[in-house]
Amino acid sequence: MSDVLERLSKLPLRENLRGLQPYGAPQLDVPIQLNVNENTHPLPEAVSRAIADEVFAAAQRLNRYPDREFVELRSRLADYLGHDVNADQVWAANGSNEVLQQILQAFGGPGRSLLSFPPTYSMYPLLASGTDTTYIAGARADDFQLTAESAAAQVRAHRPNIVFLCSPNNPTGTALGQDVVTAVYDAGQESQAIVVVDEAYAEFRHAGTPSALELLPGRERLIVSRTMSKAFSLAGARLGYLAAAEEVTAALRLVRLPYHLSAVTQATANAALKHVGALLANVEDIKIQRDRIVDELTRMGLTPAASDSNFVFFGGLESPSTVWSGLVAKGILVRDVGIPGHLRVTAGTEAETGAFLRELEALLEQDRAGR
Amino acid sequence: MSDVLERLSKLPLRENLRGLQPYGAPQLDVPIQLNVNENTHPLPEAVSRAIADEVFAAAQRLNRYPDREFVELRSRLADYLGHDVNADQVWAANGSNEVLQQILQAFGGPGRSLLSFPPTYSMYPLLASGTDTTYIAGARADDFQLTAESAAAQVRAHRPNIVFLCSPNNPTGTALGQDVVTAVYDAGQESQAIVVVDEAYAEFRHAGTPSALELLPGRERLIVSRTMSKAFSLAGARLGYLAAAEEVTAALRLVRLPYHLSAVTQATANAALKHVGALLANVEDIKIQRDRIVDELTRMGLTPAASDSNFVFFGGLESPSTVWSGLVAKGILVRDVGIPGHLRVTAGTEAETGAFLRELEALLEQDRAGR
Repeated sequence: MSDVLERLSKLPLRENLRGLQPYGAPQLDVPIQLNVNENTHPLPEAVSRAIADEVFAAAQRLNRYPDREFVELRSRLADYLGHDVNADQVWAANGSNEVLQQILQAFGGPGRSLLSFPPTYSMYPLLASGTDTTYIAGARADDFQLTAESAAAQVRAHRPNIVFLCSPNNPTGTALGQDVVTAVYDAGQESQAIVVVDEAYAEFRHAGTPSALELLPGRERLIVSRTMSKAFSLAGARLGYLAAAEEVTAALRLVRLPYHLSAVTQATANAALKHVGALLANVEDIKIQRDRIVDELTRMGLTPAASDSNFVFFGGLESPSTVWSGLVAKGILVRDVGIPGHLRVTAGTEAETGAFLRELEALLEQDRAGR
Repeated sequence: MSDVLERLSKLPLRENLRGLQPYGAPQLDVPIQLNVNENTHPLPEAVSRAIADEVFAAAQRLNRYPDREFVELRSRLADYLGHDVNADQVWAANGSNEVLQQILQAFGGPGRSLLSFPPTYSMYPLLASGTDTTYIAGARADDFQLTAESAAAQVRAHRPNIVFLCSPNNPTGTALGQDVVTAVYDAGQESQAIVVVDEAYAEFRHAGTPSALELLPGRERLIVSRTMSKAFSLAGARLGYLAAAEEVTAALRLVRLPYHLSAVTQATANAALKHVGALLANVEDIKIQRDRIVDELTRMGLTPAASDSNFVFFGGLESPSTVWSGLVAKGILVRDVGIPGHLRVTAGTEAETGAFLRELEALLEQDRAGR
């Protein structure tokens, strides 16, 4: 590989890519994979069968380009979202990364800026770089919280063209209050900022935590993005989507590649949306495991963040890399997101969660005994 | 819709997108669709079944992110291409538009330029705009031919960072000689130009017409792009790919979105590549229909271009738009590519081709009688 990198360095690569490594979490083949916030519950057999049947039906016309307006899919997604969202307010692409990239292609670019608040989804700066949008790293409090006052002040100070708010936030797991979203939106009025609330993990939020979908009416610069990767157990299908004012989806039609959503992807997502109940059946159990992790880690003397997602971010570790390696040795993969003293773990099945908690506690005891 | 466009104009859209309309050929629901160079032969039932079966198998792990290295697919594509191409030299994305976009993201961008030679694939300038790459429209001879001398001289004059050569060229259908490709590559030495030969229609070239794949060894800035949309009858599956030096695929890993190729797309393409013989069975018949169109149009007094693709570009029309409308009235959709006196028609099945030739001839006779 070093030979390839040597030859790569001789290609006329763009300056901002020189010396970079490809993005991606380590993919290790261990029995318990809790590192990339997937839904660890496989699809019900009946849903897999329904997907294959719908793909077979789509294959009858696979020689033709797909419906580039993906009318049926947008309609089904609108029905799922509720909140009076209609099909013309819905857009979709190959994963929410592509949805976010299209937003940056439409509203960002050279001379424009994107503000988000690290620690947050690590793709944001990479998506900015890929579209030559200037990335502005906003600040959070020491406990990683973000208040309406602080967020709005930063928007007024930086005057960004686009703001990405991740709620529930990855990697901390915490949802933002509606007051933060509305304060950011209002503060962005002057610079006409597009405000995106990335709700990839929305289905896992606690009862009573609202969605930014409620805030769409009357806010034409507000976008709420979602994904079928997490709650729907469809990370492999790559289907991200959003809801916004109709003119926002009109803008995205100007930058999307023609026929960007394959007929097979549309068939897969449509079949899944006919089985919402079966696919979301495990969400409640995942939330129970998530809350169990928070409780147990607290009992172990660690400091987990409050989580509205399907993962828990926790601090209080002397050496996260040692704990990470110790877990891998036991066949359990979690994520070291590079924040001192912290790790992130996906809430899996009851058995996976139990194994993680057991092995973690043993590692912590060894650690303390060894001091 | 005008209301939406009014509201769109109030959004903070990027300057280079203002006033644009979304790209896309008119999609009319007529019986004979010969407008977007699809393969009009549906997939064999056995292949549709194989695709559905492979998707069902993939659905067992659809809750997990896909293999972001799509190892099996790259290996199968390399085997299909031959010419000693190995899997590390192969890259794929959601349609060759995305492949080309990734090339521009890696090697183009602000301050860099793309040269191609219109009339050619109309997405090239749009892809340049979408990545803020300066687009340079090169020149062809009056008969749309491009010689090695002319192409090389233009490369030396413009010093582009990237050159797109479409061969067989869309919309003219004509393949470029190897001398054009090597002359452009050599002339691009000074500006270290990446040279892409877009061979979307390669499988339809006449026997004896070589592929630029033969030129890859020793040329680390040469890229040959292909697609499964045309010969493979898989326009709906959106699978474009390329072969190049290993360091080129390493560069594309820096700009691709993580997990850009879904598990369902990988399964579909893998299943298709297990049935190459069945899928390509109609290619010879399409070439016969293509040659038949050229012969018949010549007999009718029109001037079709020599074609190595699955379509024919023809001139000699007084009013292409009248002929286009006349054909639509008979249920036949062809493409008006906006070049005076010309239309483009896809070679369909024997019956579709016969209907097109019959209706066209009748329209031409009416036209002459009416003068």
